[in-house]
This record gives sequence, structure tokens and C-alpha cells, in this order.
Amino acid sequence: MNMNETICSVSTAPGVGAIAVLRVSGNNSFPIANQLFTAKTDFMGTPSHTAKFAEIMDNGVLIDQVIFVKFCAPHSYDGEDMVEISCHGSRYIQQKILEMLLQRGCRLAEPGEFTMRAFMNGKMDLPQAEAVGDLIDSQSESAHRLAVNQLKGGFSREIADLRDRFIHLAALLELELDFSEEDVEFADRKEFTETLNQLQSEVKRLIQSFRVGNALKNGIPVAIAGKPNVGKSTLLNTLLDDDRAIVSDIPGTTRDTIEDTLTIGGTLFRFIDTAGIRHSDDTIENSGIQRTYKAMSNADIILYMVDATATPESIAKEFQHLCTEVDPSDKSIILIINKIDKNQISAPTSIQDGFCDMIGISAKNHTNIEAIRTALTRCVDKRRVSDSTLLTNARHYDLMMRISEDIDRIGEGLASGLPTDLVAIDVRSALDKLGRLTGTITDNDILNTIFGHFCIGK
Amino acid sequence: MNMNETICSVSTAPGVGAIAVLRVSGNNSFPIANQLFTAKTDFMGTPSHTAKFAEIMDNGVLIDQVIFVKFCAPHSYDGEDMVEISCHGSRYIQQKILEMLLQRGCRLAEPGEFTMRAFMNGKMDLPQAEAVGDLIDSQSESAHRLAVNQLKGGFSREIADLRDRFIHLAALLELELDFSEEDVEFADRKEFTETLNQLQSEVKRLIQSFRVGNALKNGIPVAIAGKPNVGKSTLLNTLLDDDRAIVSDIPGTTRDTIEDTLTIGGTLFRFIDTAGIRHSDDTIENSGIQRTYKAMSNADIILYMVDATATPESIAKEFQHLCTEVDPSDKSIILIINKIDKNQISAPTSIQDGFCDMIGISAKNHTNIEAIRTALTRCVDKRRVSDSTLLTNARHYDLMMRISEDIDRIGEGLASGLPTDLVAIDVRSALDKLGRLTGTITDNDILNTIFGHFCIGK
Repeated sequence: MNMNETICSVSTAPGVGAIAVLRVSGNNSFPIANQLFTAKTDFMGTPSHTAKFAEIMDNGVLIDQVIFVKFCAPHSYDGEDMVEISCHGSRYIQQKILEMLLQRGCRLAEPGEFTMRAFMNGKMDLPQAEAVGDLIDSQSESAHRLAVNQLKGGFSREIADLRDRFIHLAALLELELDFSEEDVEFADRKEFTETLNQLQSEVKRLIQSFRVGNALKNGIPVAIAGKPNVGKSTLLNTLLDDDRAIVSDIPGTTRDTIEDTLTIGGTLFRFIDTAGIRHSDDTIENSGIQRTYKAMSNADIILYMVDATATPESIAKEFQHLCTEVDPSDKSIILIINKIDKNQISAPTSIQDGFCDMIGISAKNHTNIEAIRTALTRCVDKRRVSDSTLLTNARHYDLMMRISEDIDRIGEGLASGLPTDLVAIDVRSALDKLGRLTGTITDNDILNTIFGHFCIGK
Repeated sequence: MNMNETICSVSTAPGVGAIAVLRVSGNNSFPIANQLFTAKTDFMGTPSHTAKFAEIMDNGVLIDQVIFVKFCAPHSYDGEDMVEISCHGSRYIQQKILEMLLQRGCRLAEPGEFTMRAFMNGKMDLPQAEAVGDLIDSQSESAHRLAVNQLKGGFSREIADLRDRFIHLAALLELELDFSEEDVEFADRKEFTETLNQLQSEVKRLIQSFRVGNALKNGIPVAIAGKPNVGKSTLLNTLLDDDRAIVSDIPGTTRDTIEDTLTIGGTLFRFIDTAGIRHSDDTIENSGIQRTYKAMSNADIILYMVDATATPESIAKEFQHLCTEVDPSDKSIILIINKIDKNQISAPTSIQDGFCDMIGISAKNHTNIEAIRTALTRCVDKRRVSDSTLLTNARHYDLMMRISEDIDRIGEGLASGLPTDLVAIDVRSALDKLGRLTGTITDNDILNTIFGHFCIGK
């Protein structure tokens, strides 16, 4: 991605719309755009941040009447000279204007290249640039809120704070190194170790937050489990169908057809329909059931379904068995008593404590489904670490894990009386990783990986 | 559609993109938009046609960082106060900002409502407004050029010219009416009839141009016909596949998956794959073959396929039979000799004149398919009435047909010595229809029908 080239792209969603917006960015974007318009437009004389009507002509043929906005560097999204052209949204026009720009010396922008330029020009740091991608991908209020917080720099500030404290540690060590021949210990080892422990607990908190952060961003895993024929798939379809009806109340929005994710109360849930659980001596069937238990273990929430015609005793027995296979302490288990149209029962008091909720429904008749939505939302509220920063990005998680290992090594080194210069290597290694996190240290492969996931035009 | 209400919509294509644009239009668009932004934005103080960075906040929560452009009436697309908000293109953000606008007093725009307001505010006449819809729908260079010509007012000028001449006729008749008791004939009946004939021939030319105009806009019908198993479907697939490969050379464009239309050389073709033609005594099969002949009759171009292993005599016989069922004079028939990999033949000279072209191909091996594209483009060039206005709109066609009937009645009235006041009724009726064409005379049903076909946000 050469920063000296002038790039262009359609930046609005692909397809036909009332209008579409094309972006041009780079050193030559003004002279190139100028060639699209008639002389009377006086494109070059148009001031920055001004919207103007113009006609785009190609060999004397009118291609479109458009509104363009000029942004003079550095006061643009990516810090370069930029032009945004708002045209009629037919495919033909979008493609034609794109072709005209390419013929006049632009090249097509790579995915995320505008944002990469914004990063390169110091408009934002790397986590903020990554947040732009997350913001565009965000499907729910929760995911959106995480991305906005990161875009505003909340995450960057936290990392900067960690980094300052590491730099302080490094400075103390470097000072010792300067005087190493005199064998002095400037740094108070006790204070040093205490700071290190604080850093480690802060890093560990962030690492642990990844599970929640990642779930909020990509969907909280919910396993629907229970014996065969208790109505698991009917419940899933009912939940999805009801949701579709709600969504279609708001015109002009279309949902992706990922059949098993669903936004409830601003949070994305990822439903996993599992194979029915039953006792069997068949080895092959049992291995299928083991997979069901694994799905339940990976889930944050289990909707455990039983049949209203079952006896309270058999339900209690099922639950006991469930607890031997799945650790109930780190997840919310909701007992769903299906088919209440056939039989009204209440679960035995003895097991009520094991569930965070107990709901009687009829999946077939859509009875009381709303109670499941409410319960799901309540589970999340409990788990949400409201105002603190959450790790949501696998790259950040990976670096944090490795920083944590560095901290461990520094601690061990100090404890075992390792020479200061060897300890300093680990401190510098942790600092390097923090630099990679915020993007003060970069390499091209990492940048290409990060921005390669963006959509074209951003 | 109440003009006093403030309307809003997402105006870019539905789905996720790098950016999306929302439009707000109407009396209250500035006060409503002002509520979205923080005070430091000074939205109300921002001058017209200025692009400005701002943050959209909802109950203290940052929703997005956006660029807005303010357009003060009447200097906007629709002549109203307008705001365009360019936000990050996630579905959540688009929907959230839309919801915020609705909560603050906007209502969702109806399809085409912005353009309808532009028409109501005298920004464009009705054919120009209709051209906006055609422009957005245009899939090919030809359709685009027709729409642009209409948008620029080419069609409107032609109608205005017709109307002026009708008004002149009407004025002559009205003058006579004023003096009707004195039984004078002011208008020179010969000159009057001559003008009328000129008008009729102009109207008829427009009516006849509809077939070409409509074909250029919606796709020129091409029937692929021939005996069973000559390779009709293989040819269609080959044409479509090749096209898909060409289209995919230009990144960032997606085609609609209408399996049987295809743009070649800037023109849209609509391919009709027909049932194989063979001689049969079976009544049911013959009725299927009659449908094939009908499809051929409706087509502008016929790709008539024969097998290279057939004898020249049988091909000649087939063509003779074809000419008894389909009138070859109003269409271009291209003889496609398929399977030249199996046998190289040339058609007998006796029938070459009947075809506008003769091409040997192998559909299976993709041999010489390019020659078919070239031939198709050549057929269109011959038929295209290059610089004159073409009727492309069924509403215009319908009104023109009825104007032509009015002219006939006027002529008959004059010829049969009908009283001037009765003739004047037909002249006024034609004038009324011309007014409906340009939109100087409107009724709500017509407007709703016209703009109801637009996409939302335009």
C-alpha cells in the first residue's frame, strides 16, 4: 500500500441505492477529480469542506449530476487530500465513475486503506483504527458500545497507562545498568515487585475480560439442550421467527440470514441447537452426546429444556446428571419446561437453586417466549462488566497473554537474583508488545492482516 | 404525502458499507438534526453547503462520529431544508440514527418522496423526476443514456414544443368560437389540417420509438431458437458465463442474478431460451411449439441455431418454415451453426440473404462466441435512432397513444364539418394529456403510482 498513490473506491454498501458515495484520496486526488467535472464547476477553486453541485462528463456525454465535497489535507478522514462524490446509486453510474477515476490515474483502494492512511498520518492509533472496522461490523448495541469506546480512545488510554508504568520500571532498571559496575541497586526491589504485581493483575483482568468482550462482540453462546423431542428446534425457530417479525417493524432494514444469531435487548446471542441427550449404551451415540456436553461447556448460557409431562423426580435426576458433565458455576442455566399446554407442572424445589431461572412455555403455541428473552437479557446484565474496558480483539488478547508471560519472567528473574541486564530484556520485550498494541511499533504484515479484514472504501 | 412533514431515510444501498448516508428533509429538519449533535457542533450556525464533523449522542452515549452537510432551502435536491448525515455504515448505526430522527419528529420517507418534493417545488418537471428513477435503475450504458437525456430535459423540450403547437391550434379555434354567431372561419382549414398532420406524424414517431426505447431500457429481447439438442441452453450458459468472467474483472461490482439478461457493448439484452422446434403430429407438443414461435415473434433478434452436421438442404428447409411462422422483416435473424468442432459446413448461398449474419461456433468449447456478441451489438446499432428522443416510459406511451386518437378525432371532426366547439373539446383533451405528461396537470393517484416505484431515500 503505497502512500504516494491516489486511491478511490465506492464507499457505500454494494448494490443499487438512491445515492452512492465514491471516495478519492491522495496527493493527486484534486487534479484527478478536477478532470471529471466541467470547467464551470471550478473544482480547484472550491474551498475545503464545501458541498457543490457538478456534472460529470465523459467525452462530452453527461454521466451524472452529483454533489461533491472537497476535504483539504490534513483536515480529512485519512489526513490526505480527499474528495467525496455523491452520485445517483445505479450500478452503471458507480462503475462508470470508478472507471473514469482509474483511467485518470487512481488505483482501487485496498480494504481498509483509507483507515490505514488515517493511522499512518497520526489521525488515530491502531486500536482506534481497529475500532472503525468493529464499528462497521457491529450488529448489536453491546458490540457497538464496545467499538465506540475503543474508537474514542478508552482502550488506548488504558494501554498508555500500562505502558507508562512499564517505562517507569524500565527507567529504574536502566539507571542501575548505567552504574552496574558499581553494583548499586537504585530500584527499591520491594516497590518494584509491588508495581509488577499491580501490572500483572491489571493485565490478567484484561485477559479475563476477553471472554465477555468477545461474546458481546460476536454473540453470547447459548446452548439449547435437553432430551430428544423436548422441542429444542421448535423453540429455536420460534425465537428466530418472533425476532424476524419484530425486526420487520422497522422498514428499510434487512437482516443477515445467519439462522442462529439473534439480537435481544441490544445484545447478540449465538444459539447452538444440540443433539438430544439420552442414556445409551451405544458407543457411537454416546460420542454424539459427548459433543453436546462440549457445546454446553463452551456456552455461557444453557437453555435446558424438559417436557412438562415428565415427572419432577426425572427432571431432578436429569439436572444432577447435567451437573456431573458440565460445571454449572461459570454459566447461567435456565430450565425451560416446554409443552405446558399439555400439563402444568412445577419443578421440585430441591433443584430450583441450580437454575438461574425456570420458565414454563409452549414453543409450539408461542406461549411465554417473551419470558425467555427477558431471562436471557438478565443473564447478560449480571455478567456485563459495565464501565471497565473489555478486550474484544484476538490480536490484543494474544499480545496481552504474552505480556503476562513477560511479567511472570521478570518476577521470576528478580526473585532468583538474575542480573539486571537480563531482567531488562524482558521489560523491553513487554514494552515492545505494548507498542505493537497501540501501533507505535508496526510491521507491514500485521498492518495488512488488520486492514485486510476491513471492507473496501473505509 | 404531506409536504409539511419532515421526512428521513437511509439513502444509500441497504446493507453494511464503509459509510452510509441518511437524508432529512422538510421544515423542521434543522431543529430536529440539531438535537442529534452536541452543542459545540453549532449545527444551527453552520452555513449551507458546508460539511462538518460532529458526534451524535443519545442520552449521553456516543452513537457515531459523522460528517453532516446542511443544505438550506431552496438550494437543495428537493428544494426543502435538508441535512445529509454520512455515518459509519453498520446496520446498527444506520438504524439507530434513523430511530433517533423518528423519535424527534421525523417520519420515514415514502419511496421517491424526496424526488416528488423536488417536482412539487418546481426543481424538475415530471419526466425529469421519472428520469431520476430510471437513472437509478439503469443497468446498461444505453438505458443510462436515455435516462440522462430525459433528466437533462430533452424529452420535456420535445413535449413542450408539441404543446405549443397544440395551443396555437386551440387559440385559432377559440377565436372562431368567440365569433361563432357570425359564422366566420378565421382559421385557414388547410393550414390547420397540415399542422395537425405534422403533429400526428411527430406523435406517431414517438409512439413507434417506444419499442426501441423500451427495449434499450429493459433489455432487447433475443430468442434463442432451433431444433431440439442443437445446443441452445449450452449457448445461453456460455454467453452468461463469459459475461460473468468479464464483469468480475472490475472489482467491487456485483451483478443481479437475473440469469437471462446480459450487457454487451453497453446494451442490455434479454435472452429467451425457447423449446426446441420439431415437426410433430402430437397436439400438445405442437401447442408448445406455437409458444416458441410466439416468443420469436416478440423478439427483436433471433439467434437461430442449427447443427453443423445437418445438411445445407435441411437448414434451407428449416429457414423457409421459420419464415412462414415468423415475419422476418421486422427483426434481425442470426444463423448460428453450432458444433463446428464436429463438422465444418457453410450454409447454402440460397438462404444467406435471409439472415443478417451467419456464425459458426462451438458453444461447448467456447469457440467464436465473441462473434455472436459482435453481431448482437451490430444489430442494435442498426436499429438505434441515435439522437432523436425515444419513448421509454409506459405512462408516456399510453398518453401518446391517446393523444394520437384525439388528433384522429380532431381531423375527422374537421373533415365532417363538425361544429368548432365540438372540435375544440378534443383539442383541449389532447392539451390536458400533454399537461399530464409534463406534470403541469397532476393528480395524486398518478403521482403515487409514479413515485411508488422509486427506491426509498430518493
